[in-house]
Amino acid sequence: MPSISWRARTVQASPIRKLKPLADQARRAGKRVYHLNIGQPDIPTPKEYFDGIRQAAQGVLAYSPSQGLDEALDALAEYYRTFGIALSRDEMIVTTGGSEAITFALLAVTDVGDAILVPEPFYTNYNSYAQITGIQIVPIETRAEDGFRLPDKKTIEAKISPKIKAILFCNPGNPTGVVYTKAELAMLAEVAHKHNLYLIADEVYREFTYDGAQAISVLQLPNLEDRAILVDSISKRFSACGARIGVIASKNASVMESALKFAQARLSPPTLEQYGLIHLLRSSQYQNFVREMIAEFARRRDLVYAELQKMPGVICTKPQGAFYVTAKLPVEDAEHFVRWLLTDFSLDNETVMLAPAAEFYATPGKGRDEVRIAYVLNTDALQRAMRVLREGLLAYTNSPVMQV
Amino acid sequence: MPSISWRARTVQASPIRKLKPLADQARRAGKRVYHLNIGQPDIPTPKEYFDGIRQAAQGVLAYSPSQGLDEALDALAEYYRTFGIALSRDEMIVTTGGSEAITFALLAVTDVGDAILVPEPFYTNYNSYAQITGIQIVPIETRAEDGFRLPDKKTIEAKISPKIKAILFCNPGNPTGVVYTKAELAMLAEVAHKHNLYLIADEVYREFTYDGAQAISVLQLPNLEDRAILVDSISKRFSACGARIGVIASKNASVMESALKFAQARLSPPTLEQYGLIHLLRSSQYQNFVREMIAEFARRRDLVYAELQKMPGVICTKPQGAFYVTAKLPVEDAEHFVRWLLTDFSLDNETVMLAPAAEFYATPGKGRDEVRIAYVLNTDALQRAMRVLREGLLAYTNSPVMQV
Repeated sequence: MPSISWRARTVQASPIRKLKPLADQARRAGKRVYHLNIGQPDIPTPKEYFDGIRQAAQGVLAYSPSQGLDEALDALAEYYRTFGIALSRDEMIVTTGGSEAITFALLAVTDVGDAILVPEPFYTNYNSYAQITGIQIVPIETRAEDGFRLPDKKTIEAKISPKIKAILFCNPGNPTGVVYTKAELAMLAEVAHKHNLYLIADEVYREFTYDGAQAISVLQLPNLEDRAILVDSISKRFSACGARIGVIASKNASVMESALKFAQARLSPPTLEQYGLIHLLRSSQYQNFVREMIAEFARRRDLVYAELQKMPGVICTKPQGAFYVTAKLPVEDAEHFVRWLLTDFSLDNETVMLAPAAEFYATPGKGRDEVRIAYVLNTDALQRAMRVLREGLLAYTNSPVMQV
Repeated sequence: MPSISWRARTVQASPIRKLKPLADQARRAGKRVYHLNIGQPDIPTPKEYFDGIRQAAQGVLAYSPSQGLDEALDALAEYYRTFGIALSRDEMIVTTGGSEAITFALLAVTDVGDAILVPEPFYTNYNSYAQITGIQIVPIETRAEDGFRLPDKKTIEAKISPKIKAILFCNPGNPTGVVYTKAELAMLAEVAHKHNLYLIADEVYREFTYDGAQAISVLQLPNLEDRAILVDSISKRFSACGARIGVIASKNASVMESALKFAQARLSPPTLEQYGLIHLLRSSQYQNFVREMIAEFARRRDLVYAELQKMPGVICTKPQGAFYVTAKLPVEDAEHFVRWLLTDFSLDNETVMLAPAAEFYATPGKGRDEVRIAYVLNTDALQRAMRVLREGLLAYTNSPVMQV
């Protein structure tokens, strides 16, 4: 048998999805499993999105232009304008999800053997995009105890080598819930200028901010037109994860011409889904939808944070954005605990699934006692899930068998 | 300004799509342009597909599993069974178009710096997938004069080096219209066994065969379970190019585990589109749809081939499959001629757009006098387009200005 490639052997299986068989097993055993392990919200997708799909669902389902439908680009331009971001058609490409937007950005600015800086913990699939594009991730370390704020400029600059071509960061942050301040972003911009790096900002959680925090877009920063690249997605803000519609945007024409060539290779993003987006963005309803959804997520965040505060030995900061909280647990091996919750524990026949955080870190050993909790269920379900977690944590930490 | 990557500078702009601005210009000047340059058929997508989308267009538009919805995998298994191909769920992954299926196959079996053999001329986007995955394409030369049949085994084996990990081929062939014989496929299988290579077959045109020719799937070949990889797409057979639904399938568990890890990185293929496919494949109508569509394409092929035969100096073989014919024209530079048709020529205010074939070749200089014609319009439109081509060709070859 011919062998498979080194990159296939070494690319990670999704740490978020790899425990799914255990969850399936728990379900088959009759347990209810609260899924706080994956960023799939339970909020119904806006009706206007589906209306747009229905209206377009006829005739020939043709390729769209590789760059996306003109109407989709125009509707997106309008959307960005509400944030004070002016983008022309040529400065955007509709991508097949945010995943593809990140891949295009990396292909455009790095070659095989290059590297990028990424604040850790980071969205674990960045590892896969790095593996697919043949580059290294050099982590900028941040810590739960410091609320995952960025370190100072000197610490970041110490990580820079000629191989580093870009800084990739997620703002608001998955899995940290951090929203970067103007000062933090200005500092990143300064580093990018001084060391001739691109700044790639993953802003798929733009609207998910709480307590008056506001996410500043990389495209709103001054004098950064030549090196700012926005990667975006409608998955979270319109609760349309299954649409697979994202965006890459930049004022740097070479970057966009490059991304377009990669986009042409895969022909087009899904056509009907773009019509859904166009119809939604043209309706007056979408901003209300987002507003109400964020209010709901704020309640969820408050609940989850309050419950975590009550659990002995749990350390976390109140997240300001996105819909995750990364928490340190009083356990040695959070993955073992997460597995145990699925295989050995239940409360009133219910259990909970979390994402072990170790694989959100590039630094070996870090995050081993942390989990990421996605507060993507309604408050009733979250209340029950938090109860299961609290009791599970007590049972686990008190069980002599579990003291590894 | 930081520079863009070498791979971005060198990846090709789609030769099929790069002349679009000239076509837009012709249209703005009031000309009708017959698009025979791109494999986008005019056949309405089956109603059952759209019905499936409509029924599913509600609630939460969630990620599907990375591998695809179970129901989609089961419906696909049924589809393949009608060709005598038995596939279990684990032997398939639903991909975002055939493009992604090819990329996953290449990532799974090659590393950066490796190479693959591909009979040329080949679907030009293979160049982009090779560039994205950091590998080389080594062409197996075939010629219009020989009807693009494969050369003998010795000629193919002479191309093999330790860097070659797979043979990628398209059957029925884009852009050649070739359908490989049992003997040709057996020869490729023999080469694959002897030199420990994978066989990756792009079979998106499976049903598009004429005059009783039948496309044999790589998964129907004996003793090839460990090295056969099928890449597939619903774009052509269900006239659903904009759906972005493809398949990678193999009996080699390591290949499928590898592909699944790459699939997890991009989360999921479009969800609603899978429901469209499920509903279509479960209906009793889809086989009728395909049968009628193929009959229509057979008429188109006959018309285009007959018209090309009448044009002095044009050389081509009657294609047995797919919906393309690659023809040698009595011109020196087919791209110049294609541009000229858009910018300088019209007949009754109509013109035609073709794909210059040079970029379907990896060997420099080859195919310079060839074009690919996609017969994707109805017979009336094709008749007019062929008339434009005939007159255009006469005018071009008789024009002293155009004698380069």
